[in-house]
Amino acid sequence: MKTILGRELPDYIEGYGEVTPFQGAFKDARIKTRVAVKLTSVNPSDQKVLANLEEAFDKLNLKDGMTISFHHHLRNGDHVLNMVVEGLAKRGLKDLTIAASSIFPIHEPLVAHIENGVVTGLVSNYISGPVAEAVSKGKLKKPALMQTHGGRSRAIESGDLHIDVAFLAAPTADTYGNINGVHGKAACGTLGYALSDAEFADQTVAITDNLVPFPACPIQVSQVFVDYVVQIDSIGDPAGIVSGTTKMTKDAVALIIAKRAAEVIKASGLVKDGMSFQTGAGGTSLAVAAELQEIMQREGVVGSFASGGITGPLVEMLEAGLFKTLFDVQCFDLEAIDSYRSNATHQAMSASMYGNPHTKGAVVNCLDIMILGATEIDTNFNVNVTTGSNGVIIGGSGGHSDTAAGAKLSIVVTNLIKARLPIIKDQVTTITTPGESIDVVVTERGIAVNPRRVDLIEKLRMTNLPLVTIEALKIMAEKITGIPKDVPTLEKIVAVVEYRDGSVIDVVRQIK
Amino acid sequence: MKTILGRELPDYIEGYGEVTPFQGAFKDARIKTRVAVKLTSVNPSDQKVLANLEEAFDKLNLKDGMTISFHHHLRNGDHVLNMVVEGLAKRGLKDLTIAASSIFPIHEPLVAHIENGVVTGLVSNYISGPVAEAVSKGKLKKPALMQTHGGRSRAIESGDLHIDVAFLAAPTADTYGNINGVHGKAACGTLGYALSDAEFADQTVAITDNLVPFPACPIQVSQVFVDYVVQIDSIGDPAGIVSGTTKMTKDAVALIIAKRAAEVIKASGLVKDGMSFQTGAGGTSLAVAAELQEIMQREGVVGSFASGGITGPLVEMLEAGLFKTLFDVQCFDLEAIDSYRSNATHQAMSASMYGNPHTKGAVVNCLDIMILGATEIDTNFNVNVTTGSNGVIIGGSGGHSDTAAGAKLSIVVTNLIKARLPIIKDQVTTITTPGESIDVVVTERGIAVNPRRVDLIEKLRMTNLPLVTIEALKIMAEKITGIPKDVPTLEKIVAVVEYRDGSVIDVVRQIK
Repeated sequence: MKTILGRELPDYIEGYGEVTPFQGAFKDARIKTRVAVKLTSVNPSDQKVLANLEEAFDKLNLKDGMTISFHHHLRNGDHVLNMVVEGLAKRGLKDLTIAASSIFPIHEPLVAHIENGVVTGLVSNYISGPVAEAVSKGKLKKPALMQTHGGRSRAIESGDLHIDVAFLAAPTADTYGNINGVHGKAACGTLGYALSDAEFADQTVAITDNLVPFPACPIQVSQVFVDYVVQIDSIGDPAGIVSGTTKMTKDAVALIIAKRAAEVIKASGLVKDGMSFQTGAGGTSLAVAAELQEIMQREGVVGSFASGGITGPLVEMLEAGLFKTLFDVQCFDLEAIDSYRSNATHQAMSASMYGNPHTKGAVVNCLDIMILGATEIDTNFNVNVTTGSNGVIIGGSGGHSDTAAGAKLSIVVTNLIKARLPIIKDQVTTITTPGESIDVVVTERGIAVNPRRVDLIEKLRMTNLPLVTIEALKIMAEKITGIPKDVPTLEKIVAVVEYRDGSVIDVVRQIK
Repeated sequence: MKTILGRELPDYIEGYGEVTPFQGAFKDARIKTRVAVKLTSVNPSDQKVLANLEEAFDKLNLKDGMTISFHHHLRNGDHVLNMVVEGLAKRGLKDLTIAASSIFPIHEPLVAHIENGVVTGLVSNYISGPVAEAVSKGKLKKPALMQTHGGRSRAIESGDLHIDVAFLAAPTADTYGNINGVHGKAACGTLGYALSDAEFADQTVAITDNLVPFPACPIQVSQVFVDYVVQIDSIGDPAGIVSGTTKMTKDAVALIIAKRAAEVIKASGLVKDGMSFQTGAGGTSLAVAAELQEIMQREGVVGSFASGGITGPLVEMLEAGLFKTLFDVQCFDLEAIDSYRSNATHQAMSASMYGNPHTKGAVVNCLDIMILGATEIDTNFNVNVTTGSNGVIIGGSGGHSDTAAGAKLSIVVTNLIKARLPIIKDQVTTITTPGESIDVVVTERGIAVNPRRVDLIEKLRMTNLPLVTIEALKIMAEKITGIPKDVPTLEKIVAVVEYRDGSVIDVVRQIK
């Protein structure tokens, strides 16, 4: 069985199930179902606050084989996932599936639970650090399921990913389960990745280190979705939650790339009133935002929105009147948290509203310009952000495929060579995002436009920008680095990479 | 078949179905299901804005027998319901069920469509004016289904009330279907009654007279629930939407009642930090709020929240620091709209979060004190706010049963005699709210406490308040008015009164 991109896939993967191969970004659309949800209604005399996590475990009717979920707003400062899994392991539970929207180095203790069979399944949009290495080495019993941010919401809301218990790290929770992320010592801002979990899990437990009297204000996750509230000492380490001030790059090559990307945007004709923009929090991406800011100011353009994980530089653009509003699924720094707390035009969005392809229209659908990164790009513009060139898992789509699919202009900004390896290859190690969603690749040595975008090629030909074919870029890089050898892998599939619609776009095999 | 309150009900009602008789306020609780929803996913190239209502009708795959829904935030200024039904009638559709959260005198044109068979079903929480009279006279083919505000959300979310198309009057909508009620010439504030409709209808159409570029800010109903957007000239008449400044009564008797109600509240021990309070927008109810305000200020008490339909006086209490936050399902006046627009502690709630008994805890569950009205009360404290003493429908529960069930202290404030008729009777014409939810009846001639509330009776005995039995109140009234004759009705059931859990608490029969 082959995907439309030519990847060979088995028709059945043990521990995953039947495979629907990827057939194109919008092939699986139209009539969809939001799944039914069972819930236990709460009467006026019922209390939700429990004495501790153990009491919650007692109430939850826990069983081997359950799927438990976590959001990743506390990022590399998260204490909740480790604490819950440790507690469940002590109770002798086995064969758990962890559905965590992302996994970071702080989740290293999970490796031991993977090795001892407490955890046998993992569903995530982004996996980095020791857990990623353990998965790559084949330690997890079932293949990890790697989704996109929008695809995770789709899977939860459609019933493809059934969550038995959602454990919600709550920077602030009141006694009736209303949650916000803007107050408390572990404040993280918006809670976009927690909402589908709260709404669709069989049971939802809020775990907080800032229990406040009813009602919390503001309310980001409503009491109507929360069964129990547990107070603990600390849900997370603020130092790991926010990265402080996000800074753009000072690297000269990266700045050239950013400048060229901004020129591409300008030449595309999309810089006009009502424009919308998203970028990641990486140094080069933020440098593109800075370049774009200059252009918008010079031309007096007022955009409609910037979106995504929000950083200080985007907050500044909002405050400077360059965008009318922000759509924020996740605050990346303190500036973003402060802004979301105090500025009503800094609006939150759920992961579903952000990128779920099977709603009545996600925000990514309204996006003009998207700036993306890449670990590898092939000559069909397919992008890998899932594995390194050595085959080890280093991340995953996050919102990469979602935004690339939705945006009118998706630009990958990257150095042509990284760590002495060429970025552009005949075949990427793992396909994360299909080439049909990528319009332009901007490097320091030239700009390649996807041949599908004839309109854009014509516009860019009117400029002095150094247009080249992607094949030419590949050859340029290989002249310097040589042609890298293919990374040999074992047969065992250690991760299934799902496209946002739930089809399988690729698999990751065990490293040697 | 009998309800627990002794009302005789048929076990099957033509046009309604099988009857589950009411068995107690919290008998039908615990494991519940939120129903699955079918939706048509929207791709980036799809447009939602249609040229006019006719184009929407073309797209909607309309059929005889469909259920179409409307919210009532535009109250007696609403243009949308009449316009849509008129348009559907012109297309020759028949046998429609109108699920409107409330019906007002402005909806008089519906009577003609009831008479000619375009509309054969009606589901509503409150029906007043010509439509109520038409229903009472037996003109509607099927019995009207009268629900509570929370019960309507329950019915929609459980699948008991399936909506084919929700037509959402939108004071402001953007081109991708995001809606708010705070901007536009028909601004009405919060949109609490529109949310379950938008989320659970097969198809949702936003109808606006203020179409703005994407994205609207703030967003109260999300784009992910809206299929189409239609712009029309006017969705409503502002004069009918808000009542201007809500004023408390100046009637001397009503002021005495209010003062006594406040003394009951004080004596109950509930006036303390963290207290919560709700009252209707009637003159006497607002006078209770004014009395309570004085007590709270004198004693330095800071409450947690006030809730419900919000009026200027409650906004003043918020701004004076007497409550930390408001929960607003519906703004009753311009002060409330302004406050909701600008004050983050003035929080919106959906009708489901407000009163749906089958969620993980509605706001009514957290309510300490509720001030209610009554058309009739029986000696078992059952309350009628559905029909007048002549048997004609004059309203319905709205949030009456929801708040009474949830609040720790539910107080009915009423004159003992209205329009020369006694309020307290052996049997009320229609039971809207069960007596088990009513704690106290305060009249100008005495205060009756529900015998179930032994604790409260003991507290009130320590005061000088004029405690009497409800039977004594009845006799006092009848001494003045005489014993009113029972209103004779025909056999035909014209309305089924559902309790908030979906059981049938009473029926309304055709007037002679």
